[in-house]
Amino acid sequence: MVEGIGASSGIAMGKAFVIPTWEWDFPEKLIDVTDLAFEFERLYDGIRHSKNEIEQIKQEFVSVLGEEQTQIFDAHLAILEDPIFMNEVQGIMQRQYKAAEVAVKEAIEKFVNMFDLLDDTYMQERALDIKDVGNRLLKHLLGALEETLPPKDQQYILVAKELSPSQMVHLDVNLALGLVTMLGGKTSHVAIMARAMNVPYVLGIEGKLQTPIQSGDYLIIDGDEGVVFVNPSEDIIERYEARKANWNALHEQLQKLAHLPSETEDGLQFQLAANISSVKELDQVIKNGASGVGLFRTEFLYMDRNSFPLEEEQFAVYKEVAVRMEGKRVVIRTLDIGGDKHLDYLALPEEENPSLGYRAIRISLDRTDLFKTQLRAILRASHYGNIQIMYPMISSLDELRKANEILAEVKRELTAMNMPFNSNLEVGIMIELPAAVMISELLAQEVDFFSIGTNDLVQYVLAVDRMNETVAHLYDPFHPAVLRMLRLTAQNAQRYGKHVSVCGELAGDIRALPIWIALGITELSMSVQSILRVKNSLLQSRQSESSTIWEELSRCPNSSSVVEVLSKYIQADLAEQTQPSQTTNPAKPASRIV
Amino acid sequence: MVEGIGASSGIAMGKAFVIPTWEWDFPEKLIDVTDLAFEFERLYDGIRHSKNEIEQIKQEFVSVLGEEQTQIFDAHLAILEDPIFMNEVQGIMQRQYKAAEVAVKEAIEKFVNMFDLLDDTYMQERALDIKDVGNRLLKHLLGALEETLPPKDQQYILVAKELSPSQMVHLDVNLALGLVTMLGGKTSHVAIMARAMNVPYVLGIEGKLQTPIQSGDYLIIDGDEGVVFVNPSEDIIERYEARKANWNALHEQLQKLAHLPSETEDGLQFQLAANISSVKELDQVIKNGASGVGLFRTEFLYMDRNSFPLEEEQFAVYKEVAVRMEGKRVVIRTLDIGGDKHLDYLALPEEENPSLGYRAIRISLDRTDLFKTQLRAILRASHYGNIQIMYPMISSLDELRKANEILAEVKRELTAMNMPFNSNLEVGIMIELPAAVMISELLAQEVDFFSIGTNDLVQYVLAVDRMNETVAHLYDPFHPAVLRMLRLTAQNAQRYGKHVSVCGELAGDIRALPIWIALGITELSMSVQSILRVKNSLLQSRQSESSTIWEELSRCPNSSSVVEVLSKYIQADLAEQTQPSQTTNPAKPASRIV
Repeated sequence: MVEGIGASSGIAMGKAFVIPTWEWDFPEKLIDVTDLAFEFERLYDGIRHSKNEIEQIKQEFVSVLGEEQTQIFDAHLAILEDPIFMNEVQGIMQRQYKAAEVAVKEAIEKFVNMFDLLDDTYMQERALDIKDVGNRLLKHLLGALEETLPPKDQQYILVAKELSPSQMVHLDVNLALGLVTMLGGKTSHVAIMARAMNVPYVLGIEGKLQTPIQSGDYLIIDGDEGVVFVNPSEDIIERYEARKANWNALHEQLQKLAHLPSETEDGLQFQLAANISSVKELDQVIKNGASGVGLFRTEFLYMDRNSFPLEEEQFAVYKEVAVRMEGKRVVIRTLDIGGDKHLDYLALPEEENPSLGYRAIRISLDRTDLFKTQLRAILRASHYGNIQIMYPMISSLDELRKANEILAEVKRELTAMNMPFNSNLEVGIMIELPAAVMISELLAQEVDFFSIGTNDLVQYVLAVDRMNETVAHLYDPFHPAVLRMLRLTAQNAQRYGKHVSVCGELAGDIRALPIWIALGITELSMSVQSILRVKNSLLQSRQSESSTIWEELSRCPNSSSVVEVLSKYIQADLAEQTQPSQTTNPAKPASRIV
Repeated sequence: MVEGIGASSGIAMGKAFVIPTWEWDFPEKLIDVTDLAFEFERLYDGIRHSKNEIEQIKQEFVSVLGEEQTQIFDAHLAILEDPIFMNEVQGIMQRQYKAAEVAVKEAIEKFVNMFDLLDDTYMQERALDIKDVGNRLLKHLLGALEETLPPKDQQYILVAKELSPSQMVHLDVNLALGLVTMLGGKTSHVAIMARAMNVPYVLGIEGKLQTPIQSGDYLIIDGDEGVVFVNPSEDIIERYEARKANWNALHEQLQKLAHLPSETEDGLQFQLAANISSVKELDQVIKNGASGVGLFRTEFLYMDRNSFPLEEEQFAVYKEVAVRMEGKRVVIRTLDIGGDKHLDYLALPEEENPSLGYRAIRISLDRTDLFKTQLRAILRASHYGNIQIMYPMISSLDELRKANEILAEVKRELTAMNMPFNSNLEVGIMIELPAAVMISELLAQEVDFFSIGTNDLVQYVLAVDRMNETVAHLYDPFHPAVLRMLRLTAQNAQRYGKHVSVCGELAGDIRALPIWIALGITELSMSVQSILRVKNSLLQSRQSESSTIWEELSRCPNSSSVVEVLSKYIQADLAEQTQPSQTTNPAKPASRIV
């Protein structure tokens, strides 16, 4: 058993499929001078095979990993064609009469050492590319061939060093039972997507395994407790089978709540909506009785491809969401790239602090061509359902007005072309910068709704990168400063009669529910996995307590006292049982927030 | 003439000294096979000479550039010893009968291309190292030798691609008349230091020159207008000599204000203190009549060396500041590293967003050994003057209390050892995170003073990295959100009777003075260059206007209207004339903020 971090709850049991990182060791072999020609032929054969293989894998991986991830194969091909590298290999063979595989190994080691000399993490990562290629070549030279494609006819638990959001988009949820990665963060987009797709996920086990997981190993992963069992005993398998059955039974009970109204015991109505990244998630959204889509992250439409999605492609997706949600509210957030989300085909500047850099609306307002294409697609789709538009990363009235001017321009163009759209569609903004909170009084007068993005907001308020393990313990959504910002935002929205919802991960954390009741925030949008848990807790809560809750919260000097106050008001029978990592370790609130 | 960005005001005229980045071009030369041995000897000679030279420069540069910067020479030496590189050079000579310099050039090009293949800025920078070394080797092979040490017996204007803070610490202010860099940012620490040291500085002229500046070129740099003249005509020299004389005359007039009290026309007393980074700046601090040192950035004590400064070294520096300030307030900020400030000897994690990462008090509270050493040195120095302690990057009461517990522990230890210190020394915090602003009511009850760090605060409130050119236009200290945060902080400090000062760059911007008057913030700490300008403006301002100022400011929807309101209240005759870049271009406020 190895302990990691549970990033998406649930239990998965099955065979591992490992996206490999190779290691090699073999005896040094000298050759006779007369074998040199033969040895060279062997080398060229190995190179040719390696290249063909990389090309082939690249093609096959495109569908699994997405274009983005397959660029690594181009880098690998380039190394095999590199004259300096090849000169070095041939030099060792010619001058030292070493076998091809030995020369390849030594050349790789020299290059890797050279890169290491420069004493830099980035260079060491490039050195890994060379190692990977060398490895493939060595496997050919040593005749030890095996391949690395995930099976397409059986289920598996995917094991990798790291996964990217585009790999997640391509993940076949019917085959991938669970995910295990060595690295990664609980609040990464990969983790968010795993939760949305209901795939159990444990991460952060780098260096904790004595022997690496092999493809075919039998794994149990427990996304609640954050543990992975490798080839466990029958006892443990039985225990987990029982637990899984129990977990399923609880989820069936929760499932019965899907069609109940979302309201407190004393009748305060809530809207519990879903955050989604792709149309794929709509089945779950509908199954869990979401009141709508509170946040459609459109950036995933732009990822893992070679060019910007055309208006028609976007329109088709937005329309599908609108139609399938049957008149329920669908909030489409305009492109939020930059920060930790990149597009291969859009060169963004190298930034020292990408989270404080060129991203989201900042890019859209510069690249009005892209922005207008997206707005046009959204507007056209608005004819088919209840679509609303939301701008991310708004920091000022000026930005909001600029975005709205462009929207007005697109509306005029559509009208001129006789394209139907909902001319009254609501327009709102993410409140995710401290600046937006501070001027929420001004912003509320010029929008239809706010949606508070707690993930980024907490990050900026506390100056803590939520992906940075070193300071992760300081990332704290229950910090009194955050509560005050939530309150200020809610008050200003309410003052001007505007909707206010919360769409950060905090919305799906049942411990936060008393905060929303206290602040009169009755619209929450969350990972689809959380909806029924939150509903379960909501059904047992009371609006009548709201004034005393805030009174107590406002007196809290720090987050541990906030969590303590909240714990008095949390009502959650099923929710507790189905979210064990939140109740078994009440002493460490911050580390459990997703 | 080339236009850049003025980063430190004043005019400098003199000869350029260029820290070089070489370029080369020469005809391809083939050799006879019989010359090969001779050619190899030439190559080895060149390598040997290059290595000796690098070693020698490294030694000489240590005193000019600091240890930090000389590590580049180790990387250069490593390249000359690298077997892959040398194999490549020899291979070209042996197989293609090319002269040593041709082979070196081609080998470099191959390596550089290989790195470029990987399509990454970082790799391209490493490629530059190889180019630099190759260049040196080529100069030896081609017999074109010249050297690169700044003169030690004459004044010069230093020209470089970039400068680091440790290079600045070693800068001889008597010899360096001015600075020009191709890259860099106006709010970088190098720019801050240039202003503190009163050295005119123009940056950001990368790609704007048709021919690069050569050592010995006659330059005029105008740090106010942000322009550089290369070998200007007599006319321009005369004009600038006149302007310089005028500038000096105005500064003499300002200088007369040094001993006047700092107060508004109607008698509201201010404290105008100085931000400093080293003892070196104290002459200027005293000359400009500063009320004290409002911010001593101790991190520069830790930079450009191989190990942490010992307690005794720190004590000596802090004591010197305390003694020389003769009882005036000296606020010592504890170590603020991380973010964009690094120590060679303290390995910090690689961070995706260092500004949202492991820095300042977060490091001090982890590395209590370092923190206690510093606190002990500060406490001991407090016996010799009016020293106060300030913690940077405080985000919560918990952090403040933890820091204070460690301080109490150090005090107990000193008492037990009979070491004298001021047991009543005041302890304050930087207010530079939005979180600290939001809980300033709680924090005010447990500190003696606040100092608002506007540079970082603006950065976090707006989520804009102030060093990032792409989003620099969004970095806006006059944003209404910032004003609201300043007000909240001031109100909470005043409510509990605590000092509140401002120590960010905004404190030295005369346009902001009406804000301080409106908010009742009467303690400002700024770059020493700004003190008399601010005083000049202060002497003409009126406290009686304060309530109407805030009334107008609070109604501003955006920063351009804030700047407009402020402009009505700014009183500055001399200040305007001596700070032309602030008054000649009122249409673009954000870009002028430092």
